[in-house]
Amino acid sequence: MTEVEVKKSQDSLQDRLAQVIDLLQRQRVVEDLTHRQEGQHNSLVESLVHRQNLVELQRKLDDLHPADIAYILEALPLDDRLTVWQLVRSDRDGDILLEVSDAVRQTLIADMDDHELLAAAKEMDADELADLAPELPRDVVHELMETLDAQQRERVRSALSYDEDQVGALMDFEMVTIREDVSLEVVLRYLRRLKELPGHTDKLFVVDSDGMLKGVLPIKRLLVNDPDKQVAEVMATDPVSFHPDDDAYDAAQAFERYDLVSAPVVDKSDRLIGRLTIDEMVDLIREESESEVLNMAGLREEEDIFASVWRSLRNRWAWLAINLITAFLASRVIGLFEGSIEKLVALAALMPIVAGIGGNSGNQTITMIVRAMALDQVSPGNTSRLMRKELAVSLINGLVWGGVIGVVAYLLYGSWSLGLVMTGAMTLNLLLAALMGVLIPMTLVRLGRDPAMGASVMITAVTDSGGFFIFLGLATIFLM
Amino acid sequence: MTEVEVKKSQDSLQDRLAQVIDLLQRQRVVEDLTHRQEGQHNSLVESLVHRQNLVELQRKLDDLHPADIAYILEALPLDDRLTVWQLVRSDRDGDILLEVSDAVRQTLIADMDDHELLAAAKEMDADELADLAPELPRDVVHELMETLDAQQRERVRSALSYDEDQVGALMDFEMVTIREDVSLEVVLRYLRRLKELPGHTDKLFVVDSDGMLKGVLPIKRLLVNDPDKQVAEVMATDPVSFHPDDDAYDAAQAFERYDLVSAPVVDKSDRLIGRLTIDEMVDLIREESESEVLNMAGLREEEDIFASVWRSLRNRWAWLAINLITAFLASRVIGLFEGSIEKLVALAALMPIVAGIGGNSGNQTITMIVRAMALDQVSPGNTSRLMRKELAVSLINGLVWGGVIGVVAYLLYGSWSLGLVMTGAMTLNLLLAALMGVLIPMTLVRLGRDPAMGASVMITAVTDSGGFFIFLGLATIFLM
Repeated sequence: MTEVEVKKSQDSLQDRLAQVIDLLQRQRVVEDLTHRQEGQHNSLVESLVHRQNLVELQRKLDDLHPADIAYILEALPLDDRLTVWQLVRSDRDGDILLEVSDAVRQTLIADMDDHELLAAAKEMDADELADLAPELPRDVVHELMETLDAQQRERVRSALSYDEDQVGALMDFEMVTIREDVSLEVVLRYLRRLKELPGHTDKLFVVDSDGMLKGVLPIKRLLVNDPDKQVAEVMATDPVSFHPDDDAYDAAQAFERYDLVSAPVVDKSDRLIGRLTIDEMVDLIREESESEVLNMAGLREEEDIFASVWRSLRNRWAWLAINLITAFLASRVIGLFEGSIEKLVALAALMPIVAGIGGNSGNQTITMIVRAMALDQVSPGNTSRLMRKELAVSLINGLVWGGVIGVVAYLLYGSWSLGLVMTGAMTLNLLLAALMGVLIPMTLVRLGRDPAMGASVMITAVTDSGGFFIFLGLATIFLM
Repeated sequence: MTEVEVKKSQDSLQDRLAQVIDLLQRQRVVEDLTHRQEGQHNSLVESLVHRQNLVELQRKLDDLHPADIAYILEALPLDDRLTVWQLVRSDRDGDILLEVSDAVRQTLIADMDDHELLAAAKEMDADELADLAPELPRDVVHELMETLDAQQRERVRSALSYDEDQVGALMDFEMVTIREDVSLEVVLRYLRRLKELPGHTDKLFVVDSDGMLKGVLPIKRLLVNDPDKQVAEVMATDPVSFHPDDDAYDAAQAFERYDLVSAPVVDKSDRLIGRLTIDEMVDLIREESESEVLNMAGLREEEDIFASVWRSLRNRWAWLAINLITAFLASRVIGLFEGSIEKLVALAALMPIVAGIGGNSGNQTITMIVRAMALDQVSPGNTSRLMRKELAVSLINGLVWGGVIGVVAYLLYGSWSLGLVMTGAMTLNLLLAALMGVLIPMTLVRLGRDPAMGASVMITAVTDSGGFFIFLGLATIFLM
């Protein structure tokens, strides 16, 4: 898409959002008035005010960067969001659709007719079209593909053939390619003829006549070297490159590690087919850590904060239902010991402490491990060492805090043996929490799942049922 | 620091880590043998093998990018880590220290003497020195400052005067500045004389004779425009710029939103004093989301996965202790109703279900809200709307899942009234969870704290105590 000049603004983004909300509210007041006084004679004045408000809002929106409009759309509830969306100049629709989150994009697309969608999509590059295509109505996609030339169509098809977590789905095709047997002077003249360079062009790609990647020419080297030198003398051979079926997250880590701005994507025979840029990688890093947070809490996907209640319910039900089952199992564990509880009702009051501390400690361990796995720091070679460390931490925590709460139990109920059972149960449950905090994410990875998936729900299930069983079991053995 | 050429490698990073671990293990076997056979005659052979192993390891390390060595150091337990660290060529120490995580950096610095530290720090730029200075011994910092020239010393001082979450602490000073009244041809010749450009130079900074920022000249424009044009004709006036006391995280969001690679930092009178680059911003985005995950689980800071047990305990104790207090309070809530539990022991088995589902649902809500706050999507204008949505979701969840579990309670214990109490308690506790899931992070923000801080521990505390009180209270009123 065309590049947008980013201008400095005196207002922060939050201020600008507040201004938009303010205009929307004034708007609504006017609408209410107009509505109430319908049929009366002063509605002409009202409708003038109405119009003036909208014009002011529209002017404000025209000044904003598409990314800022996207932010404002995301922060508005549905009705206000659509009011703003209709005021946005239609030639900016495409840019904005590419910036908003998936959840918000769906609400915007639902509000557009086929004609508007086609117009918005027409200005997009192949890789941007491929991003959007899965969410567009089928016949719109069909019509779009027909307007493309053969090369573009092929690129969209290719991008769509990869999973969204593969490099092939994220690469773009805006590469500047040069030959190695020309002088830098020739390259400089060639660039001048192009009139515009693609965004994030920090290097040019050096290819041979078959399109094979021979190296890259960093713009920095182009600028500081003698123009009479040949490209081959100055270029970097053997640069970091990616394959379209590489894992996109690995690529993002490489960008982060090697401070890359762009990198070539080549096929199996080393033919240049596209490039990755840092902006896509930053988005990916952000999304990845977001999905980790959401997964740990048992949420399926990012939720537009103004999503309908129904959408929210669907997002949250899967893990709530699983939690219901695990809570029921924990309840049945307690049911096994109803006899003991009837004899010593203090057990009912103390048992949630054992389960609760186990849950907290287990969550700390599992968070640590999931983090380390995301950073590729856990390997089969160090698993047993990690496990020993977590068990040692738990043992100490169990003895120390279990000891404290054991003394408290003695003070409350006047029984030393009850205090000792408490300390023992805490220690054992914390050891169980450490063991499962390491094993659960590792098992999930071995099963090919995301290690963060519902981690919190699962570890809590184990420490609840386990805690109740250990505490009530020990109590039944030693106190009954 | 000098720029390192990144080479493509056939091995993945994981493979390379595995190779290093393998060499270390062979090494250890040899050392064990040498140790056991001390005083015997074949120790010469052993020591040759020993030496050969180390040389191979050293050669492998010399081939690796500093970021890759940093990754390997982070993935190794302390003793192996220090073995590898001693094998690294000392002129690369500085680069690697800047790449490793804070926790690992401390272990490496502790292993170096003052002389080595000084040598490593000598090659650093002012902004890099400022990053490292807080962790270096006092006298090393003192000696370092004396070796710097006045400008460098001033820059280090200035960088150290900002908080680590301010732009001033993250900016570097490697800017290429030009005047607006020269032609592009002159700029091109000037760049050639520089021999090398700083990393991430995607734009040149246009300043007047007082150092005031007049605009920026994107390299892209420099390349595609006629060399006879003046800088003033081609430059972008009014670019996105930052102040040194701006919030660094806001700056990172601006980089992400506007797809920036570098941006100028100016003081209050618009004088250019430094620049920000995307690589620092990517690190910040990563750190920010990490600390969010850790904070939610009640961990104080990132923990080196091979941290000593003692360090791990310190990291985890604060929130465990808080959890102990909240668990004790929950236990006391149950204690209030011991009479009811004695009469109807089923209450003891059912009460954790009410508390558990409340905790899960509350964690989902709080995760959602913390996310939205991190993205600046929550404003006073939409709080009540958000609250209503969360309450509606909870009401439906409470009635549906509470209804299910009410039926189950009836089937288990044969009492309709017990089932109804269960459904009512679930619904009320989920409403409480939604309310607190919104209010806790909002209150933390209003108190100037991180909204994610111990979010999980706090919401669980509320849903536990609240759940027990609601369930046992309703049971005492309606069933006793």
